[in-house]
Amino acid sequence: MDTRPIGVFDSGLGGLTVIRELEKILPGEDIVYFGDTGRVPYGTKGHDTIAKYAAQDMRFLHSFDVKAIIIACGTVSSVAFDDIASVSPIPVIGVVTPAAVAAVSAVAAMKNRKIGVLGTSATIRSGSYQKVINRLNPDVQVISRACPLFVPLVENGHFEADDRLAELAAHEYLDEFEGLGVDTVILGCTHYPILSEIIGRVLGDSVTLIDSGREASHAAKQTFAQMGILSQNQTGGKCRFYVSDYTDDFARLASILLAHSLSGYVEKTDIEKY
Amino acid sequence: MDTRPIGVFDSGLGGLTVIRELEKILPGEDIVYFGDTGRVPYGTKGHDTIAKYAAQDMRFLHSFDVKAIIIACGTVSSVAFDDIASVSPIPVIGVVTPAAVAAVSAVAAMKNRKIGVLGTSATIRSGSYQKVINRLNPDVQVISRACPLFVPLVENGHFEADDRLAELAAHEYLDEFEGLGVDTVILGCTHYPILSEIIGRVLGDSVTLIDSGREASHAAKQTFAQMGILSQNQTGGKCRFYVSDYTDDFARLASILLAHSLSGYVEKTDIEKY
Repeated sequence: MDTRPIGVFDSGLGGLTVIRELEKILPGEDIVYFGDTGRVPYGTKGHDTIAKYAAQDMRFLHSFDVKAIIIACGTVSSVAFDDIASVSPIPVIGVVTPAAVAAVSAVAAMKNRKIGVLGTSATIRSGSYQKVINRLNPDVQVISRACPLFVPLVENGHFEADDRLAELAAHEYLDEFEGLGVDTVILGCTHYPILSEIIGRVLGDSVTLIDSGREASHAAKQTFAQMGILSQNQTGGKCRFYVSDYTDDFARLASILLAHSLSGYVEKTDIEKY
Repeated sequence: MDTRPIGVFDSGLGGLTVIRELEKILPGEDIVYFGDTGRVPYGTKGHDTIAKYAAQDMRFLHSFDVKAIIIACGTVSSVAFDDIASVSPIPVIGVVTPAAVAAVSAVAAMKNRKIGVLGTSATIRSGSYQKVINRLNPDVQVISRACPLFVPLVENGHFEADDRLAELAAHEYLDEFEGLGVDTVILGCTHYPILSEIIGRVLGDSVTLIDSGREASHAAKQTFAQMGILSQNQTGGKCRFYVSDYTDDFARLASILLAHSLSGYVEKTDIEKY
């Protein structure tokens, strides 16, 4: 039993899809969310820059005496997870392993043992999902594709199901999957579930999409329960939101990603001091 | 006569289109360029964040004892120029006023006195170009359009003349200009000249495009000449490049924006310390 909050961070707003899931499955938990909106996107940047930003994000969340941290960012989970987890005094959950476990389990029943992975440039360059998938099952073939414009599209509001730019971007990135027999595709960045209707339409109905943020939320619940650090509260959890940049658009976009209006505490913080 | 270097900065790589111009018209000048590739883009961020980043960029360039600074960024020139220029001990040139002067001069000879302005969200929200244009000529009508995906498109290499995503984005943003009688359009962000072939094709042949970076370069030459601070050297100027993030793609993209291969000094710097 531990009533301290859970810390969650992302490069921007994509991690709010993880909050949406946590609110459903752990409604009694308090959460502190940090979105690095002042430096978004991470996924087009280099390894050292991402690692440095992630370390600052971790230090910021630690300042709230959180009991555990969920890295709700596919890029950080891919590039810096081992560095972060190896020195963290509290449990850290990333999105890569939970999504890889779910995908390997899904293809076990399939004819074609092929998993597609969609992620940012840094995520795909790291080979993170492929490594975990092949450690779980060396017979699975992994086909990866970087989709660097998906994050700017989402952060600029291009995610409606009929958005022409998002649809064309999806075709640019995903048409190459046609005919390859890939029946399971990991949405390896927490921004991508917002585009899942478009991505699903382009890939076709027979393809199962794995939401890396949702899988991480469920893995977190399981881990925290096993460790005995869940709160005894079944309802009433509160979420405080911190961002490194605040624009007029923030509340509107955040409400869409959370699937409810943004209520409660939102504050801008100077992340570069951490 | 002043042989100290000229400082030039941008949110990322767009400002290299200004360097390309300076190399042509001031080939004897040494230049220090800073591109904030670790925090790009600026134009989707809020006023306070942009002003803070710009102040750090200025302090970084001042550390080289530069004789003048060119803000090769439409967003910073729009949002923070007055704050910067009012406290700067050395001359500061932005891109807004030079581009506005060129556009007002261009429409003087036209039937329709309508100027289109394309810029980032922050630039268009600031109304910067409109203010300067109407101070120069209150009879000119200004039609502005934010094009927030143009910077991510350029920074991710989507700028070839046949790039389908860049073309569709241009249609999304620019089709509304059809039939409005706009014959002069300011490319109000230094990334946009890289897309000028696509933008020109979508707007039509009769539209004159004003390159804000090129206009700023020429205004800078004129100002520095009047102030007597140009170098006496006619050739042999060197450019040192500093960035806040370095990826494998940097040299390739930079070479395209510079229109020659990137040679010489490139170094990564920790801009957050400034």
